[in-house]
Amino acid sequence: MMEGVAGVCVVGLGQIGGSLLRAAADAGHQVWGAAQSTADAAAAVADGFHVLPSVEDAVGRASDEDALVVMAVPLPSIPDVLHKINELATTVRLSDVVSVKAPVADMVHRYAPRTRYVGGHPMTGTEGSGWRSGSAETFRKTAWVLTVDKGTDVVVWADFARLAIECGSHVVPTSATEHDLAVARISHLPHILAAVLASAGVEGGALALALAAGSFIDGTRVAAGAPELVRAMCEGNRDALLEAMDDALGRLGAARGSLASTGGLRATIDSGHWARRELEQLRTALTETYPIDLRSTEALDSLRELGQVGGRITEISEMTATASSY
Amino acid sequence: MMEGVAGVCVVGLGQIGGSLLRAAADAGHQVWGAAQSTADAAAAVADGFHVLPSVEDAVGRASDEDALVVMAVPLPSIPDVLHKINELATTVRLSDVVSVKAPVADMVHRYAPRTRYVGGHPMTGTEGSGWRSGSAETFRKTAWVLTVDKGTDVVVWADFARLAIECGSHVVPTSATEHDLAVARISHLPHILAAVLASAGVEGGALALALAAGSFIDGTRVAAGAPELVRAMCEGNRDALLEAMDDALGRLGAARGSLASTGGLRATIDSGHWARRELEQLRTALTETYPIDLRSTEALDSLRELGQVGGRITEISEMTATASSY
Repeated sequence: MMEGVAGVCVVGLGQIGGSLLRAAADAGHQVWGAAQSTADAAAAVADGFHVLPSVEDAVGRASDEDALVVMAVPLPSIPDVLHKINELATTVRLSDVVSVKAPVADMVHRYAPRTRYVGGHPMTGTEGSGWRSGSAETFRKTAWVLTVDKGTDVVVWADFARLAIECGSHVVPTSATEHDLAVARISHLPHILAAVLASAGVEGGALALALAAGSFIDGTRVAAGAPELVRAMCEGNRDALLEAMDDALGRLGAARGSLASTGGLRATIDSGHWARRELEQLRTALTETYPIDLRSTEALDSLRELGQVGGRITEISEMTATASSY
Repeated sequence: MMEGVAGVCVVGLGQIGGSLLRAAADAGHQVWGAAQSTADAAAAVADGFHVLPSVEDAVGRASDEDALVVMAVPLPSIPDVLHKINELATTVRLSDVVSVKAPVADMVHRYAPRTRYVGGHPMTGTEGSGWRSGSAETFRKTAWVLTVDKGTDVVVWADFARLAIECGSHVVPTSATEHDLAVARISHLPHILAAVLASAGVEGGALALALAAGSFIDGTRVAAGAPELVRAMCEGNRDALLEAMDDALGRLGAARGSLASTGGLRATIDSGHWARRELEQLRTALTETYPIDLRSTEALDSLRELGQVGGRITEISEMTATASSY
C-alpha cells in the first residue's frame, strides 16, 4: 500500500462507520461503503458519498483494489459480514470497530480465517446513532485500539494504524483479552451503572427528576443511547463484565455497610476521589517519546508492553512507530 | 421588605455562598459576607465585596438591617453558626444551601428556634470548591429548593423565593422530608456510584485509564469534588441514602444475575433507557402556568403539591406566585 492512497471500504454506515467514511475521505483515501440500513445508506449518498448496493459489491471491490476493509456493524451482525468477506475478499486486510475484541477475533478465525485481520476499537462516540450522528471529527484526539496478538501481521497493523492516525486518533496497542478486561471497567460497567442510576432516580418520582442536576444528568447520559446497541456491547463482553460488576457490587455493598454501621463513607469517597485524580494525572502527564521499529522481531511485544503501561502510538513513518509513554 | 432592596448576608463564601453574594449584588441587593476560610474571605475582598471580620459581625449587621441571612457552610458547621445567630440575630429571616433539609431544620429548631427559617437548596455547583470556583451565573436556569413545612412563614418563604428567582433560578417547593428522599436518589447516589466506578476503573490499570472515554469520564466526574464536602453531603442524608443504595444494589445484583444466567441485560438497559427518556421529556415538556395566591390559607399545601408533580415557581409578584407544571 502506498501511504494515503489506499482505498477504504466501510461496511455499516452508522455513527462510527459513517464517521470513518468521512474522516478517511478527508484524509485523501478513495472511500466507499455499504449499509443494511437504507436510511443510513440514503443519508450517506445525500452527503455525496459512494454507497454500493450490497455488502457483496462493497467487499468485492475491496478485493479487486486491495483496499482496507472495516466492519462497522454490531457484534451480532459480524458473522454474516464475515461469510461474505470470506467468499468475495478472502485474503483482504480487515479490521472492525466492535467494542469487544476476543469474540470478534474468534469469529474471524472461524468464518474468514484467511483474512489479514487486526481488531480495532475507536474509543469514541456519542449517545446518538446512525449516519447523521457521525462526523469526520469523531476520532480527533481519541484513543483507537488496534489489537496485537499472536499471529498479527505487523505490516497490516501499521496500515490500519496509519488510517487511525490520519483520522485524528492515537493508537493504543493491546491484546484482545487485555482490551476486553479494560473496557469492561471503563466502558461497559459505566453503561450498567448509568442504567441503574436512571432507574433508581425515576423511582423517586417527578420531584426527583425535577431536581436532577449535573451529577444525575452526567451519570445517566449514556443511558440515552440506543438500548439494542448498548445491550449488544455489554452482553458481548459477558465474562469480563461479570468480573467488573462483581467488583462494583462489592464496593457498593461495602459502602452501604459502612454508612449503615458507622455512618461514614470515607473509604468509598476517598478511594473514588483518588482514582479520579489518577485518571486526570494520566491524561495530563508529560510524555516520553521513543521509536519502535516495526520490522524488529520484538515489535509485537514492544507494542503490547506500551499499551499495558497506558502508552500510545502517535505517528507511523514507513515502518517506524512513534511511541508516547508516561 | 421592599422588593429588590433588602440586605443579603451570606455566611460562608465557598462556591455556592460566593456565587450567591455575587448574584445578589448583581440583582441590586446590599450584600455582605463572612467566612471561616481566610483564603475565601481574601478572594472575595479582592473582587470588591464587603466581608466582615467575623460571623458575629455579619449576622449582627443583618439583625440591625433586617437582612436576609443565608448559611452557606457545610452541615457540620451549621450548629456553630446557629448559636451565633440565636444570640445576635434571634428572629432574623434565615435560609441555607445545605444539600439535606430535615437535619438542618432539626438543628434550627434546637439551636435558633426563634429565627424565621426556610430551608434552601440550590441544585447547582461544579466539582470545584472555594470562592474562585463560583460565579454570578451559577444559579441561572437551575432549580432552587425552598422548603414548605408545617409552621413555614409564607411571607418569609416568598422573600427567599424572590431572591432565588432574582439569581436566575426557578423555585421548587417541597417538604424537607420529600426533598431528602429525592436528592438521595438524584444527587447523593450519583456521587456514590461515581466513586465506585472510579475505583473499579483504576483497578483495571493504566491501560484501562488510557482507554477511558466519555462514559467513564462523565460517570466519574463528580468524584473529582472535594471528598470532605461529598462525604458531609452524603453522610448527612444517611437514612434516605441507605434506601437509595439498597435500590441500586438490588438493581445491580439483578443485572449481574441476569447476565450470568441468561447472558442478557434487556431489563436493566431498557429500564434505564426509559428512565432517561422520562428525564428528558420532563425537561422539555410544555408547561401549564397558573397563579398561586400566597395569602390564601391553602398556599403552603398548593406549593407542596406543585413540587410533588415536578412543578416550579418562576415568578413572584407581590404575594402572587406563578406556578409552572406539566
